[in-house]
Amino acid sequence: MPSLPANMLAVQLHDYEGTPGNLTVAQVPVPRPGPGEVLVKVFASPVNPSDLMFITGNYGFKKPLPAIPGFEGSGTVVEVGSGMMARFMKDRRVACAAADAKSAGGMWAEYIVTSAQFCVPLGKNVEMEHGATMLVNPLTAWALVDEARKGGHRAAVQTAAASALGRMVIRLGQRFRLPLVNVVRRPEQVDLLRAMGAEHVLNSSDAGFDAELRQLCHKLGASISFEAVAGEMSARVLGAQPPGSRMLVYGGLSLKAVEIDPGSLIFEGKRVEGFWLSGWLRGRNLLSQLRVARQVQSMLAGDLKTEIRARLPLEKAAEAVKQYSADMTAGKVLLVP
Amino acid sequence: MPSLPANMLAVQLHDYEGTPGNLTVAQVPVPRPGPGEVLVKVFASPVNPSDLMFITGNYGFKKPLPAIPGFEGSGTVVEVGSGMMARFMKDRRVACAAADAKSAGGMWAEYIVTSAQFCVPLGKNVEMEHGATMLVNPLTAWALVDEARKGGHRAAVQTAAASALGRMVIRLGQRFRLPLVNVVRRPEQVDLLRAMGAEHVLNSSDAGFDAELRQLCHKLGASISFEAVAGEMSARVLGAQPPGSRMLVYGGLSLKAVEIDPGSLIFEGKRVEGFWLSGWLRGRNLLSQLRVARQVQSMLAGDLKTEIRARLPLEKAAEAVKQYSADMTAGKVLLVP
Repeated sequence: MPSLPANMLAVQLHDYEGTPGNLTVAQVPVPRPGPGEVLVKVFASPVNPSDLMFITGNYGFKKPLPAIPGFEGSGTVVEVGSGMMARFMKDRRVACAAADAKSAGGMWAEYIVTSAQFCVPLGKNVEMEHGATMLVNPLTAWALVDEARKGGHRAAVQTAAASALGRMVIRLGQRFRLPLVNVVRRPEQVDLLRAMGAEHVLNSSDAGFDAELRQLCHKLGASISFEAVAGEMSARVLGAQPPGSRMLVYGGLSLKAVEIDPGSLIFEGKRVEGFWLSGWLRGRNLLSQLRVARQVQSMLAGDLKTEIRARLPLEKAAEAVKQYSADMTAGKVLLVP
Repeated sequence: MPSLPANMLAVQLHDYEGTPGNLTVAQVPVPRPGPGEVLVKVFASPVNPSDLMFITGNYGFKKPLPAIPGFEGSGTVVEVGSGMMARFMKDRRVACAAADAKSAGGMWAEYIVTSAQFCVPLGKNVEMEHGATMLVNPLTAWALVDEARKGGHRAAVQTAAASALGRMVIRLGQRFRLPLVNVVRRPEQVDLLRAMGAEHVLNSSDAGFDAELRQLCHKLGASISFEAVAGEMSARVLGAQPPGSRMLVYGGLSLKAVEIDPGSLIFEGKRVEGFWLSGWLRGRNLLSQLRVARQVQSMLAGDLKTEIRARLPLEKAAEAVKQYSADMTAGKVLLVP
């Protein structure tokens, strides 16, 4: 193992207002792991919707500025702090996360220090690039489908169904026989999802959309919804679901407020909640977390595969954010140090 | 008992679009009670927010047109159908409701047929005019405060706090020592509520409103909210409440959608539900319903008193709706056949 350099290249976020030029790269000192921590040499890290929320100040927490963005990625553990779990990770290929207000670092850098608890060792057959996008999307898709199954819902409806995450939900729905009503916004997305075998795909731009959505939701008993768009889409979907339905909001891609018709809440007993992967994981014990991580990992090359459309160096972080924001369904953009 | 006339005066709703002239009066046949039903000679019936929702098509159900509006009122039972409960009501002074999709009639008429189950006999000390507004507001106020107490919430926040219902919630909060954060929109409403002893009253038009609301909600532990305004007010209130809070939406006075910041749902574990008196009552057994009705009736002249600002004949129903809509905090407008 060569000795570590003193400095590294890292993306720096300078404000939460989305000002042009708020993302730069700089040379900063390579951080060193403390007790229970590991130093990961980053292989790759994607731009996720949660990163977009973070850099615009809409995430669950803010870090002191300048901050290094990037919530997930993959890499090799090159140095470890004290503690059994940290030592266990030494020299391993891992998927890891920085989704914690306390960790100053982010994955859009050459190195990151994170808690050993936020690392999942990658199996021999798992490619480093697949590992880079393993935690956020595949785990969220898994958790959403799990909520529907455990809640005894006969079917589910999801918005942003053509997103990377939406397509994972579709494949998991096929595997676990959970009928899905998939809502997209463009005709080519309808074709895309039909081609992967999705039975019910509705385009919200179509004239008869609301009536058709309502009829399908009632027929299939879609009493749970996975909502990532917000704005009036929330009201349209919850309005179409049968009485007593539950909506899980896990994103706000439109950057608008979730809108809900008061009548849906008052007269139809529907309710709206949020879904956050961090909270969901905290609600499970370590054994259950590991079991889920193993299952998810075994599907990374298949049902939970992520398509990559571009690989850019750290210097092009602003460009990567722009590319991904422009079209979130055309595959992930990876930052590769 | 004089014999019944063949016809009666009744208000008629002709559309759900709020078209000018959609409320008229007409002579229609006096209805006759069937099994389990009673015929009530109406004394008075108020214009409530739920009536405004009904006549604009925003209520939980629609009746075939032309329909007679008016969900609650008081009167004397002058004829009864078969069945023990119906016979028990004969000649009694009652508060009664027509809040049911199946009952064709409404209270804005000289007579109404309704189920004996929707009648509550008035005690000797209860004035007929107090009985006219006994069911909707006092019972809802009671139920909301009951939800807060049973849910173990240390405090509650309510919007539209200067409404008739809001003021009942304040008095019940004082009686049951439930601290309340009261949100109003105008300075004179602040004075009004302060004068009745409300400790925490915030004007949402003030510059520092959001910061102050947040500070108070966190300090008092206001983890439940009673929301009747909708629009951006919902987002401001839920945003100000501590993590894990619950919002009960029971109205939509702004006629806008409920707006919620996705972050409140996703990252703070907050949730939004509706509250509907009919549903709440259906969830209780008859004994419990009667106990609540008795308790509420005992407070009608005091904590649950309704202020009346105008009494108009049926012919002026459209005028009554207009007067009430223009200022809902200045007391109830009663229709008196």
